[in-house]
Amino acid sequence: MRVNIMVGGPQALVPKEQVLQRQNETWIGVDHGATLLLNWGIRPVAAIGDFDSTTTAEMARLQSQLAEIKTFPPAKDFTDTQLGVKAAIDAYAPDQIDIWGATGGRLDQLLANLYLPLQKAFLTYLPKIRLVDTQNIVQYFLPGTYSIYDQPQMDYLAFVNLTPVRGLTLPDEKYPLVNWTDKIPFSWSSNRFTSIVNHFAFDEGIIAVIWSRDLFQP
Amino acid sequence: MRVNIMVGGPQALVPKEQVLQRQNETWIGVDHGATLLLNWGIRPVAAIGDFDSTTTAEMARLQSQLAEIKTFPPAKDFTDTQLGVKAAIDAYAPDQIDIWGATGGRLDQLLANLYLPLQKAFLTYLPKIRLVDTQNIVQYFLPGTYSIYDQPQMDYLAFVNLTPVRGLTLPDEKYPLVNWTDKIPFSWSSNRFTSIVNHFAFDEGIIAVIWSRDLFQP
Repeated sequence: MRVNIMVGGPQALVPKEQVLQRQNETWIGVDHGATLLLNWGIRPVAAIGDFDSTTTAEMARLQSQLAEIKTFPPAKDFTDTQLGVKAAIDAYAPDQIDIWGATGGRLDQLLANLYLPLQKAFLTYLPKIRLVDTQNIVQYFLPGTYSIYDQPQMDYLAFVNLTPVRGLTLPDEKYPLVNWTDKIPFSWSSNRFTSIVNHFAFDEGIIAVIWSRDLFQP
Repeated sequence: MRVNIMVGGPQALVPKEQVLQRQNETWIGVDHGATLLLNWGIRPVAAIGDFDSTTTAEMARLQSQLAEIKTFPPAKDFTDTQLGVKAAIDAYAPDQIDIWGATGGRLDQLLANLYLPLQKAFLTYLPKIRLVDTQNIVQYFLPGTYSIYDQPQMDYLAFVNLTPVRGLTLPDEKYPLVNWTDKIPFSWSSNRFTSIVNHFAFDEGIIAVIWSRDLFQP
């Protein structure tokens, strides 16, 4: 099954239409993300976090409508997003975890979210985790050979080695790459699919593949 | 001297007031960032990029008002931001380079910007480069022992090892850390200053220090 986690990042970056298409799936609300889900008519199975950006009135509403609320102190060993992903794994052992509302705003939080699947506690789930926002889908890969598919409404394709990488090869993308090795992280941005399916492979490290699109904003 | 580079990221994330305070400094406009500067009454010394997000009318205006415009094809070996930073270094050998408009929007572009100072061509300039947006200041550090200072209007302090790191120590921050070593990138987010000046040190790797603040948006 697929579990969706709504984190409390800027609402403007959450693709509402896609979220509503999943209203009958399983949702976990993290911090202010739980209130956002209720506002959009989705009742999460649980709300989790320190709720430091949730008002007293919003908290009362969560308590009246949700079966399970787990409150943690702001100074804790895990970020709110980590608590949400842990809860999803513990309760459902899902085969896909999509995280929404995890981008924008504070870069320290964005990077904590981006790097979450790389941490030891989540590494076995890394291939199952995606971050989704209005302009981006981020999916994580361990060494191997993969087929990847063009996504509707997305224009660009990128490969980012979040760790040192060995042997990254993009055989059939618009801008190919052969057996690239580097110790330094790099974003091979603005690549393109050349057909519905393309491929890539690498021997060591962790790669984030990013599907993205431009969205001109005022 | 200090050179400012305005990149073409979402305008909503560019702190206009801080930019205007620097209107008499040296500015380089990258792609649509050049038009944004003109809109705000600042005439950059040069405009650089593929200008794929600049309209014909905006381009004509740049040509009539700027002394130097360097146009590159969209498929090139460097990103627009890299071209801007190279131009700043070649023309001015500045002792500080602040990059604005480099966050938000497409994550592949944000990560390309975040990782720019780590690349071989820019590594000697790494300690002089900062990214600035409405909620964040990112500064880069090579191994050493440092004093860092609380910044006005910023609430949080974070340490992010963008590469494997050895011996990261935060001796006097709110949440201290002693001799931390890891091969995996991690964002030690939501830390706090305990006085106007705090300290940190590490032996190997590259650390991004992020000053940030919450900014509740609709």
